[in-house]
Amino acid sequence: MNYLKKVVTLLSCLYFGVCAQAQTHPNIMLTKANIAAVRKGVTLYPLLKGSYQDVKKEADRALTIPISVPLPKDGGGGASHEQHKRNYQNILACGVAYQITGDAKYATYVKNMLLQYAAQYEKWPLHPKRENSNPPGRMFWQILNDCVWQVNVIQGYDMVYDGIPAADRKTIETHLFAPIVKFIYDDNKETFDRLHNHGTWAVAAVGLTGYVLNKPEWVQMALKGTDKTGQVGFLAQVDELFSPDGYYTEGFYYQRYALLPFVIFAKAINQYEPKTQIFKYHNSILTKAVNIALQGTYSNGAFFPINDAMKDKTFESSELINAVDIAYADISPDKGLLDVAARQKKVIVSDAGLKVAKDLAAGLAKPFNYQPMWMTDGKKGDEGGIGILRWGEGNRQQAVLLKAAAQGMGHGHFDRLNMLYYDNGGEVFPDYGASRFINIETKNGGGYLPENTSWAKQTVAHNALVVDQTSNFKGNIKEASKYHPEFIAFKTTDKIQVVSAREDHAYPGVQMLRTTALIKVAELAKPLLIDVVKATSSANHQYDLPYWYKGTIIDASFKIEAVRDNLKALGKSSGYQHLWLNSENEVPANNGYVSVMQGQSFYTTCFASTTPIKVKLVSTGANDPNLSILESKAFMLSQPQATNQTFVTVTENHGQIDPVAETTSGAKSAVSSLSVVSSDDSKTVLTFKIKDKAYTITINYQDKNNFIQIN
Amino acid sequence: MNYLKKVVTLLSCLYFGVCAQAQTHPNIMLTKANIAAVRKGVTLYPLLKGSYQDVKKEADRALTIPISVPLPKDGGGGASHEQHKRNYQNILACGVAYQITGDAKYATYVKNMLLQYAAQYEKWPLHPKRENSNPPGRMFWQILNDCVWQVNVIQGYDMVYDGIPAADRKTIETHLFAPIVKFIYDDNKETFDRLHNHGTWAVAAVGLTGYVLNKPEWVQMALKGTDKTGQVGFLAQVDELFSPDGYYTEGFYYQRYALLPFVIFAKAINQYEPKTQIFKYHNSILTKAVNIALQGTYSNGAFFPINDAMKDKTFESSELINAVDIAYADISPDKGLLDVAARQKKVIVSDAGLKVAKDLAAGLAKPFNYQPMWMTDGKKGDEGGIGILRWGEGNRQQAVLLKAAAQGMGHGHFDRLNMLYYDNGGEVFPDYGASRFINIETKNGGGYLPENTSWAKQTVAHNALVVDQTSNFKGNIKEASKYHPEFIAFKTTDKIQVVSAREDHAYPGVQMLRTTALIKVAELAKPLLIDVVKATSSANHQYDLPYWYKGTIIDASFKIEAVRDNLKALGKSSGYQHLWLNSENEVPANNGYVSVMQGQSFYTTCFASTTPIKVKLVSTGANDPNLSILESKAFMLSQPQATNQTFVTVTENHGQIDPVAETTSGAKSAVSSLSVVSSDDSKTVLTFKIKDKAYTITINYQDKNNFIQIN
Repeated sequence: MNYLKKVVTLLSCLYFGVCAQAQTHPNIMLTKANIAAVRKGVTLYPLLKGSYQDVKKEADRALTIPISVPLPKDGGGGASHEQHKRNYQNILACGVAYQITGDAKYATYVKNMLLQYAAQYEKWPLHPKRENSNPPGRMFWQILNDCVWQVNVIQGYDMVYDGIPAADRKTIETHLFAPIVKFIYDDNKETFDRLHNHGTWAVAAVGLTGYVLNKPEWVQMALKGTDKTGQVGFLAQVDELFSPDGYYTEGFYYQRYALLPFVIFAKAINQYEPKTQIFKYHNSILTKAVNIALQGTYSNGAFFPINDAMKDKTFESSELINAVDIAYADISPDKGLLDVAARQKKVIVSDAGLKVAKDLAAGLAKPFNYQPMWMTDGKKGDEGGIGILRWGEGNRQQAVLLKAAAQGMGHGHFDRLNMLYYDNGGEVFPDYGASRFINIETKNGGGYLPENTSWAKQTVAHNALVVDQTSNFKGNIKEASKYHPEFIAFKTTDKIQVVSAREDHAYPGVQMLRTTALIKVAELAKPLLIDVVKATSSANHQYDLPYWYKGTIIDASFKIEAVRDNLKALGKSSGYQHLWLNSENEVPANNGYVSVMQGQSFYTTCFASTTPIKVKLVSTGANDPNLSILESKAFMLSQPQATNQTFVTVTENHGQIDPVAETTSGAKSAVSSLSVVSSDDSKTVLTFKIKDKAYTITINYQDKNNFIQIN
Repeated sequence: MNYLKKVVTLLSCLYFGVCAQAQTHPNIMLTKANIAAVRKGVTLYPLLKGSYQDVKKEADRALTIPISVPLPKDGGGGASHEQHKRNYQNILACGVAYQITGDAKYATYVKNMLLQYAAQYEKWPLHPKRENSNPPGRMFWQILNDCVWQVNVIQGYDMVYDGIPAADRKTIETHLFAPIVKFIYDDNKETFDRLHNHGTWAVAAVGLTGYVLNKPEWVQMALKGTDKTGQVGFLAQVDELFSPDGYYTEGFYYQRYALLPFVIFAKAINQYEPKTQIFKYHNSILTKAVNIALQGTYSNGAFFPINDAMKDKTFESSELINAVDIAYADISPDKGLLDVAARQKKVIVSDAGLKVAKDLAAGLAKPFNYQPMWMTDGKKGDEGGIGILRWGEGNRQQAVLLKAAAQGMGHGHFDRLNMLYYDNGGEVFPDYGASRFINIETKNGGGYLPENTSWAKQTVAHNALVVDQTSNFKGNIKEASKYHPEFIAFKTTDKIQVVSAREDHAYPGVQMLRTTALIKVAELAKPLLIDVVKATSSANHQYDLPYWYKGTIIDASFKIEAVRDNLKALGKSSGYQHLWLNSENEVPANNGYVSVMQGQSFYTTCFASTTPIKVKLVSTGANDPNLSILESKAFMLSQPQATNQTFVTVTENHGQIDPVAETTSGAKSAVSSLSVVSSDDSKTVLTFKIKDKAYTITINYQDKNNFIQIN
């Protein structure tokens, strides 16, 4: 079945389906057929019980406070903004409380509130505080927020539907929901018909409302666009917004956010039209997207913070709770998802949440199946991708990320072939993430700071090769969006995991190639991190390779003589203006090591180069008058002038520190004598010793079947 | 009964006791009468079971490795040093394993090892690697380590006594223990007869051996010195080394260390001579010392790191495991100790450990009773002391320490009236502790770094007033040891906890007085920290009051303009040479605030002054060529020139940050309009507002009954 035919078939099913089916309420996350079971479940299964108690508390608190439906006037974080947000949260909570308790007071609360909205909504003009970047809503400063409001409220309405008199329902549907829906698909047609995650919120709002109010017309537009051709709308979004592997191009932090309307609307489609098998649509792409969102976390649950990302954001976020519950209950009961659910400490009080909590209580959970993988970027999967290496479980897991994806739109960073390294429960070579103090009014209203552009997005802020002290594509987003890195290789065996990618356009005339591997040798308990960064050019360039690290340098092969006074910024632009140059060290024989004490163990990075290099120790803080940049430190391998250049590092995690017993063992690395034997277009050969045993590693760039050899 | 008479009575009891009692083995931590119960206990009570499994594993591992008794030649951390250390650990483990399993192989192992020692010991000269500061041992580079060895080995020997043939015992006792004992009390008479914690290890080694080998002479010397007059020896040490409240002058980190030989030897005395009631000796001082060691921790178990202290050291250390087990089982079964034991996750496999594990398993634990207190320093309790304020439980506990103790010998810091503040599970205004990377060979062999003197001990490294950019007593330990601060007041009520102390000698001609309080006001959920630092002088001085903080400044009443380039050291000496001056801010109207985001909440410090001041933002790192000083940051209230000067601060913990939900509330402090109304010798009056309510706080320096008033 070809692609177009498949879409047409699916759309037909959907259309007829809605018409054919009798309307029942509720029928989205919580369904009529399952109410009895969920009511029983909230007394039986700890996770559901706790989650329900939280919701009920929220609902009961709502009932104690007079209803307030203010005239919209404030921007994000302001009073009217926060009140409308709280209102939809309360409606949702009261909907759940009504279904579980059967107490009419919750339905009455929702009815009264929605009647107040219905009495006012049509009079509201466009929101007075509008942002430049996004079209305004009527309730909120961005239409996006209006859509989010409706996605939540319609679910609450669905739950109290039977508890609201028909006449009131008519008022609410006629004077609130119908105008909202029209405002979204008609007044904001551009957003509605956009292949973008804001568009997904818009179609989900309209489509969910169409299902609940039995308006097939709205559902159809939601699914295939206002012109109903299927060029835009939900199904086209499903087709376009994820790579074939399920990766969302802005990175994992935004993948999490983008996922929610997809998952909830798909759940509704599945509910109303089970025969469409929406979760299998487009090669089960939504299933893949949920899995990729989880694979985009380290074993502590934190998303890899590539591009603009708030760090510390984990899979415990509400978007992933929805996604995990639905994925487990409605798509595929992968026992590893139960492990995630347990760590989320919450389920949605819903059919799906019931199933998750019940199976968890039955002890069915297995550790989530983190896997090394290459995930493609681009809707066809041909715009580079993200390589993730993984070794070991839980706290002891080593994870390495090679970022060889496309630019990732406006939230993308200029960090082609950036590498992140995690171990022992946290970051070893971290990514800075976004420069933003979210919700902190005093820091640019909680928005992205100027330093997000001057620092966080710049190449040098990452573990990425910098040429001539400038950023990739000179920091030009338009230019950067034209190109993407090329995939070279990804392999995993019992002893080796390796990923390799190339970037030809970030610096005109310079080809960059990075190969990163975890290799397990018999002499050591944990794998070594091997990192080979190769630059090829016919002209001379300066090459800087920073390794941002956490912890404290306690040893190095060279004598560190840090600047004692008059500390100077390393450069003038491209992020270098924010770096203090703490020391600049000559490295005899083109190689050496740096040992860092971090937490309760050590990381020693041995390095070698094809040409003479220096090691610069840098830290952030220069030209940061408002103290906006967080303290960060790096050792930077620096080659002042060369045409071709290969940097090689081998990083070993070793030793153990027990601060209570005050014992330390294994403070010396077992790795020594690293050197680059040769490096050219066909291969890089490096050697090192572990204790007395010599190892040779050969990377065969042009032989994918035999890409890496260890001898 | 007067003091001398009491000692004599006690000594007589002890002497006759030893003679009168039949010798049984074992009879120290594990006793013959209790073996059956302990054997059963290791199968029943989780904590004892786990602890025993660890010991047994250690014993079994020991048996798989050939015995090695090397000629002593290496210093601390070297091969022979580590081997002899491992040997005593193995002897102790095998002693326990022998008693629990009854398997002769463990006794045989100990016998064989001790016979090897007995064959060599008398031939060993003084240790070739001797330190300058401490006399050498024969087995180790310091006699201290030889004593520790014997304290452990004699306990192991006691446990396998019945499993070693009499002839072998004779060899071991004649050619190993007797010469060791003689080496300690005779060759090292000076250490043995010293009123110092090294002396305690010496007398414990000799005394324990005397008990086990039934040598009353050795016991007598251990108790009352080689001349048996009682001027020195264990009882005199008990009398002299703790303040009447049980505080050990070097601070809590060393209190922990000093405690161990006291507790173990007292336990043996109690075992052999129960009628002496040794634990009640000198007003139950050892009981108090154990309690003070625990009160010297924050609610996360970490010792307050005043003076030279390794941070992260907690009451989970083995010294405190011994102390807590014995305190609970042999002194007073305070249920709060069970809470500590549970968090230690270990008991000694012993009579005491059995009781602790059993009662824990029975669910008898209560939260450890942290209390606000003033603990005196000095053997008479008249050399200042430490004030600790506490509010709340567990993770939410607020703790404030005012350091008004004596200098604390060679490990003391020059930080008179230093203040530490803890909240929400960790440090808010931290102490740097010692500058030392313990056991890290590359950092000065793991010893104290030069920066311990140039930085960590200096006044400015603490939250303490610095006059004229010099340290207390110009950093002269001899001078500093002559004086101590004076206690002014300590009070606690339901609403207020306050401590106040004075220091007149740290800076000639300047009287310093600090008053620190936690006050609970109706408007706020948690108490406010009030800090009033007053300096009085007839001459002009520069006064700097640094607040070292953790976290990130996100707001201030003044516009911060941090230095963009050419960062400069703030001074030349007294620790100022290690400070970068990041910004120097004018403060209009003598007051303002600094807001710090830390972890998941905020700390806003409002400040006010009697005279115009500046705020300097400083961080460590200048003149630190070897990168030895850890990153630290402070805001420093600075008065360039004044005679009398009062600094007042009010610190509020407020708000909540949820990084996963990305929500923030309460980022603004409720405190405003702080000012100093007046400050003189009789009182300081300050006012501030909480929301709209005005508060006036009056500190009456000369009225102890009415020391602080809030209106």
